Amino acid sequence: MQMPSIPKGTRDFLPEEMSKRNYIFDTIRNVFQLYGFKPIETPAMENLSTLLGKYGEEGDKLLFKILNSGNFLQDIKKDELITENSLRLSNHICEKGLRYDLTVPFARFVVMHQNEIHFPFKRYQIQPVWRADRPQKGRYREFYQCDADIIGSDSLLNEVELIQIIDEVFGRLGIRIRILVNNRKVLSGIAEIIGEPDKISDITIAIDKWDKVGNEKVNEELLTKGISMQSVNQLQPILRLKGSNHEKLNNLKIILAESYTGLKGIEELEFIFNQLRGLEMTNPIELELTLARGLNYYTGAIFEVKAIDVEMGSITGGGRYDNLTGVFGLPDVSGVGISFGADRIFDVLNQLNLYPESTTQATQVMFVHFGDKEVNFILPILHQLRKKGIRVELYPEAAKIKKQMAYANNNRIQYVVLAGENEITKGRFTLKTMQTGEQKEITLDEILTAVKSNDNH
Amino acid sequence: MQMPSIPKGTRDFLPEEMSKRNYIFDTIRNVFQLYGFKPIETPAMENLSTLLGKYGEEGDKLLFKILNSGNFLQDIKKDELITENSLRLSNHICEKGLRYDLTVPFARFVVMHQNEIHFPFKRYQIQPVWRADRPQKGRYREFYQCDADIIGSDSLLNEVELIQIIDEVFGRLGIRIRILVNNRKVLSGIAEIIGEPDKISDITIAIDKWDKVGNEKVNEELLTKGISMQSVNQLQPILRLKGSNHEKLNNLKIILAESYTGLKGIEELEFIFNQLRGLEMTNPIELELTLARGLNYYTGAIFEVKAIDVEMGSITGGGRYDNLTGVFGLPDVSGVGISFGADRIFDVLNQLNLYPESTTQATQVMFVHFGDKEVNFILPILHQLRKKGIRVELYPEAAKIKKQMAYANNNRIQYVVLAGENEITKGRFTLKTMQTGEQKEITLDEILTAVKSNDNH
Repeated sequence: MQMPSIPKGTRDFLPEEMSKRNYIFDTIRNVFQLYGFKPIETPAMENLSTLLGKYGEEGDKLLFKILNSGNFLQDIKKDELITENSLRLSNHICEKGLRYDLTVPFARFVVMHQNEIHFPFKRYQIQPVWRADRPQKGRYREFYQCDADIIGSDSLLNEVELIQIIDEVFGRLGIRIRILVNNRKVLSGIAEIIGEPDKISDITIAIDKWDKVGNEKVNEELLTKGISMQSVNQLQPILRLKGSNHEKLNNLKIILAESYTGLKGIEELEFIFNQLRGLEMTNPIELELTLARGLNYYTGAIFEVKAIDVEMGSITGGGRYDNLTGVFGLPDVSGVGISFGADRIFDVLNQLNLYPESTTQATQVMFVHFGDKEVNFILPILHQLRKKGIRVELYPEAAKIKKQMAYANNNRIQYVVLAGENEITKGRFTLKTMQTGEQKEITLDEILTAVKSNDNH
Repeated sequence: MQMPSIPKGTRDFLPEEMSKRNYIFDTIRNVFQLYGFKPIETPAMENLSTLLGKYGEEGDKLLFKILNSGNFLQDIKKDELITENSLRLSNHICEKGLRYDLTVPFARFVVMHQNEIHFPFKRYQIQPVWRADRPQKGRYREFYQCDADIIGSDSLLNEVELIQIIDEVFGRLGIRIRILVNNRKVLSGIAEIIGEPDKISDITIAIDKWDKVGNEKVNEELLTKGISMQSVNQLQPILRLKGSNHEKLNNLKIILAESYTGLKGIEELEFIFNQLRGLEMTNPIELELTLARGLNYYTGAIFEVKAIDVEMGSITGGGRYDNLTGVFGLPDVSGVGISFGADRIFDVLNQLNLYPESTTQATQVMFVHFGDKEVNFILPILHQLRKKGIRVELYPEAAKIKKQMAYANNNRIQYVVLAGENEITKGRFTLKTMQTGEQKEITLDEILTAVKSNDNH
């Protein structure tokens, strides 16, 4: 018989990986809550009409579509079946798809529940998303996003808060990062100034790849998109401005003096940098003019996070979008959000070996199983210990002691209690500390003390 | 523009519902951990070859199938396309499906990871499952299961432990329940004794509906399945045995005296009941001979839980399966497990209004936003309060006080701090307790004390 398998690009998580992942999720969730964000969840399946057209042509192709249940061919004519191309046919036989990110479902949620929620609405959401991307190292077809968004408030204090959250989360995780910030209005201003105001979208998409493909390729792409050589040459020195954030902004003010939108973007950035200066940030915030972020819906500040000590793409990103709910019929609601990439953070923590020693909720004490008589004595004790919050197990069978000890070791159980007939008669048990091998005779009450005091370390 | 919608049978969860659901999940998870169960997760998508044929013909029809990505028509001949029926075609154009429960993916997991895990393996898993069932009240197409299984141990102590877990979880939730127990070996014994040993599967499926459709319909179904009138008449008094568990078992011993399997089942039940007697159970355990549970893979003890104070189907179920991993190539591994139905438990708690007062991690303190000057003073204070673990917000805009207060009310924020220019100069702020309307003047340090002491209640 063939060994069973799982779809490529997906993973199982074993207990140890779960503990590590939960450590990441818990850290992020706790910080979100400290800032007043509230949890929501949306279904894994969305109507395709909600998803299609929101992620560009490429994104549409990466949606996992769900075959209509029942007789999905019922309403389809035979000629349609053979003449249709696969993309068009899929839209006839599939109404639903798996969510591709958490932002579009959130926009849909806000519109549907606009009368149940209160603006400004601060929500967080930690759920998996699915993309039919080609699987490769660090890229999965099912992965978790951890998003926080504030919707229904124009205030730039929201941007400040989200950057604080980024700083706090990575501070708690012990990952040193650079927080890159830019503003779409500044990019629009630059497009205006170099004489290509209509090409902002092409410029954004091209310079977004700077990091990955380098200067030459970006320029090539810009030329291909019909941007003049002169404009490309003008663009270069602007994007490569050097100096502190303050110096860059001062230079930009001169360069973008004629662009109303550009100056607005600069003003926004200045406000954000000024506010953050007073706030004991752990990590550097850098104005990065080549930061563009691909998604079309951003309209103001944009953020991205890079780990300093590990070579890895962006591990968190986000930005301001002024009209995401507009496509669902609720215009003029501005939002701003960030998304932590839990899977990449998991890889970073693994590479740097930054997990705290005890991230697991593993069993604290195992009782050795000697036989029925002892079991009758031990079961009520287990009950008492659990009542006091101790995570405790009895090995389920009267196996050889060696096998039982191996089980305790494999499961990283801290203590093993040996309570055989003799010990029960005496009322004194042997407590073995697995890490040191140390054994001592103790009473039942002392078990509790030993375990509890160790737990406090 | 049309209001957006979500697929029928699916739901969004708003913050308040999330808090309630998390209360349920946390309760179940904590108890699982107290008993030494470890978390795993499996992907939402499984290969259809893993899922098909495991849930009976009906189950197969209820699987959500995922269209192959890319050009899914590539390898399909045109005649196949038009001559195929929809079920067969779906198997050509879909390789993957959404998981239908957590048990089959777990069996697949155990086989795939048999060299990474240690037996006996105690795992828990809390994840959504998907079924293309007709949506109706209390039945969804996406819902959560909370499963605990022990695999690789024959010991009946595992059954005892799972029943303790059921008792403890519902005790903590405050839901009064009856725990119904039966044993498939007893049912097999009964089938033997009434002369229909080969019809055990049909008998199981029929009597499983006793609760819903009543005696007559069950008998009708039994006759339809080719079970003789005489056998049906013999079956009646056995299934309707009255008395305590002890009395029922004693009667069964006489009735099943000639069935080796039947007597084995009785012995197992006796062991379980005897062990539980010493363990301070909160809820009654009842031997229910009409309990059969539909799924074919059970081979020993079976459990089901009914809420006493609410009319509702089974809210938890499970049992022993001796060979679930066999279909994936790993024979002779026995397992036993339970599954809590989080969505029905959610409904029960709602109907009985049993949620504790504070299940939310809502913001504790909101600072009113007066203007830029005050904000500069307040932001560092927020930072300090968050460092001390207080969940605190600044309203993001200088809106009218009334609007800001309404926000605090709507979001059930306990305290509001008013720190205007005057208060900042004096170093004394107004703290308003939202529930009582009480206001007092306090210093910054006192804010911390007020909030912390309230939090301890």
